[in-house]
Amino acid sequence: MISTDICIIGAGPVGLFAVFEAGLLKMRCHVVDALTQVGGQLTEIYPQKPIYDIPGYPTITGEELIGQLMTQIAPFRPSFTLGERVEQVNRQAADTFLLTTSAGTVISAGVVVIAGGLGCFEPRKPSIPDLELYEGKGVTYSVRDPEAFRGRQVVIAGGGDSALDWTLVLAGIADKVTLVHRGNTFRGAPDTANRIQELANAGKLDLITRAHATHLTGEGRLERVGVSVYGGESLLIPADDFVPLFGLTPKLGPIAEWGLNMDKDAISVNTLDYSTSEKRIYAIGDINQYAGKLKLILCGFHEAALMARSAFQFIYPDQRINFKYTTVYGINAF
Amino acid sequence: MISTDICIIGAGPVGLFAVFEAGLLKMRCHVVDALTQVGGQLTEIYPQKPIYDIPGYPTITGEELIGQLMTQIAPFRPSFTLGERVEQVNRQAADTFLLTTSAGTVISAGVVVIAGGLGCFEPRKPSIPDLELYEGKGVTYSVRDPEAFRGRQVVIAGGGDSALDWTLVLAGIADKVTLVHRGNTFRGAPDTANRIQELANAGKLDLITRAHATHLTGEGRLERVGVSVYGGESLLIPADDFVPLFGLTPKLGPIAEWGLNMDKDAISVNTLDYSTSEKRIYAIGDINQYAGKLKLILCGFHEAALMARSAFQFIYPDQRINFKYTTVYGINAF
Repeated sequence: MISTDICIIGAGPVGLFAVFEAGLLKMRCHVVDALTQVGGQLTEIYPQKPIYDIPGYPTITGEELIGQLMTQIAPFRPSFTLGERVEQVNRQAADTFLLTTSAGTVISAGVVVIAGGLGCFEPRKPSIPDLELYEGKGVTYSVRDPEAFRGRQVVIAGGGDSALDWTLVLAGIADKVTLVHRGNTFRGAPDTANRIQELANAGKLDLITRAHATHLTGEGRLERVGVSVYGGESLLIPADDFVPLFGLTPKLGPIAEWGLNMDKDAISVNTLDYSTSEKRIYAIGDINQYAGKLKLILCGFHEAALMARSAFQFIYPDQRINFKYTTVYGINAF
Repeated sequence: MISTDICIIGAGPVGLFAVFEAGLLKMRCHVVDALTQVGGQLTEIYPQKPIYDIPGYPTITGEELIGQLMTQIAPFRPSFTLGERVEQVNRQAADTFLLTTSAGTVISAGVVVIAGGLGCFEPRKPSIPDLELYEGKGVTYSVRDPEAFRGRQVVIAGGGDSALDWTLVLAGIADKVTLVHRGNTFRGAPDTANRIQELANAGKLDLITRAHATHLTGEGRLERVGVSVYGGESLLIPADDFVPLFGLTPKLGPIAEWGLNMDKDAISVNTLDYSTSEKRIYAIGDINQYAGKLKLILCGFHEAALMARSAFQFIYPDQRINFKYTTVYGINAF
């Protein structure tokens, strides 16, 4: 079991900066994230895009900002559990919580800080009957190892970069690739779209536009994908794999079941210290909601600072905070 | 007369960042500061000291941070009035304020944002009867031009860096320099203190320790400084100039007279948008006060962001804010 002062759920910029603010007050942190890397949305969704509204950085990429934050918090030696999602938060009789992850890791903490951003990013699933029944039996929402598709018959659905890119990659590996797309133009890069069209013209892949997958068939395993072409025709395409690639969408996940007061998909907090309706549980960054809330990274930084001062009362109940400026006293790391 | 959307009082880091947040919403800003340079405390008090708690900067000096902020706000082309203090803020019948500075500059603005930090930095004055009577008649609290002291008899009071440094400089310029210090050790750099002692030993200056100035005499102009040495002795030192150098202390100044609800030396604000008790007047950064307030630069950045969204309703009463992420849409400067 991992034991810590504060367990931070979410390793995005706000969760990471919370380590710093907690550290200034001598509180140790353990950070858990469902993603396998730190940085949250910034490294997962837009690592190379410039951000312009981080105060003091006229421009910085998500990846650079996370790198800077990791350097900034390093003196406080945070520990991490990555690639696991916190499934349960159970309050113990005493003054601790036990958190359990999707992989069974157990963390004991005096304070829980939810910095979960928009939640976990999950694949956006098309509305097809029995889709979930075939998950793991031919239906998959990502291509982790292209070699797993060698020699197989694959149907890909989607019209964005991800669908186009993987169609091109798998066209050289799979026995047969069929791309099904609702429109007749692509949202992806024009160059990629042109190459798709060339390969289709050359008979190297099947391109079915203005169409969408309607149903799946197969005995215990996927065997065929039903496709409806707008204007009338219905097709039944033999398929070992069906790969819908319609992007990612954030899902709050188990957080919604922890009994916290919620406001739509966000956690209601008190702006005094960004505490939730449950004592010793805080929510900071994009995941919280209050009157005037702006979903900006810089606001999450402020929330982290106020949270830390408040959490101190639970971690060091017998002490008073001695407010010190880092400019005068440095950071006094662990 | 200068006309602008938002007049920001205070060119410290928070006032500067407010230009950015206002600019994103197409509001133009004019910034006024009593200091002759931008940066507030950061450039005036500790330009070279490292700051450790700016999110995303493991370390940055005050001067560097201000440089970065100036680059960040440049696209929004703020204008500045420096070296003048805002003395009056008068609400006009319509929807504007007229602000008047110490130099008579008049600024018309729809919204006023007070980002005045701890106020204006003023010299800390020793408690000596009639001290203010002799100001400008021999009493001065800073050495702007050392040459002004050539050939004169100067009494300096203090024991910090500033007192020591100026004693050394003026020892080579004035006819006679006397340093009066309450302690018998110095708070300034050891090397400087040693040089003071050497010059005193060599008769190049008079050093009176464990003593303080008690009274001033002179007909219409300073002629003598009375000094009491601990243990008994009293001296009356002939002096053209008396220069007490006990550091700077922030004073709120005229802001306290503008009819805003105050909480001790700070302006009470609503954390919804950091508005004051007066409509269209906001207070952000170290100068405001609310439950849970932390006087951190990073908190002022957050306050600036929420202030700007709120101010928008007054500058563009017929428009709704279209919230856009800079990462997606850029900054769309003027």
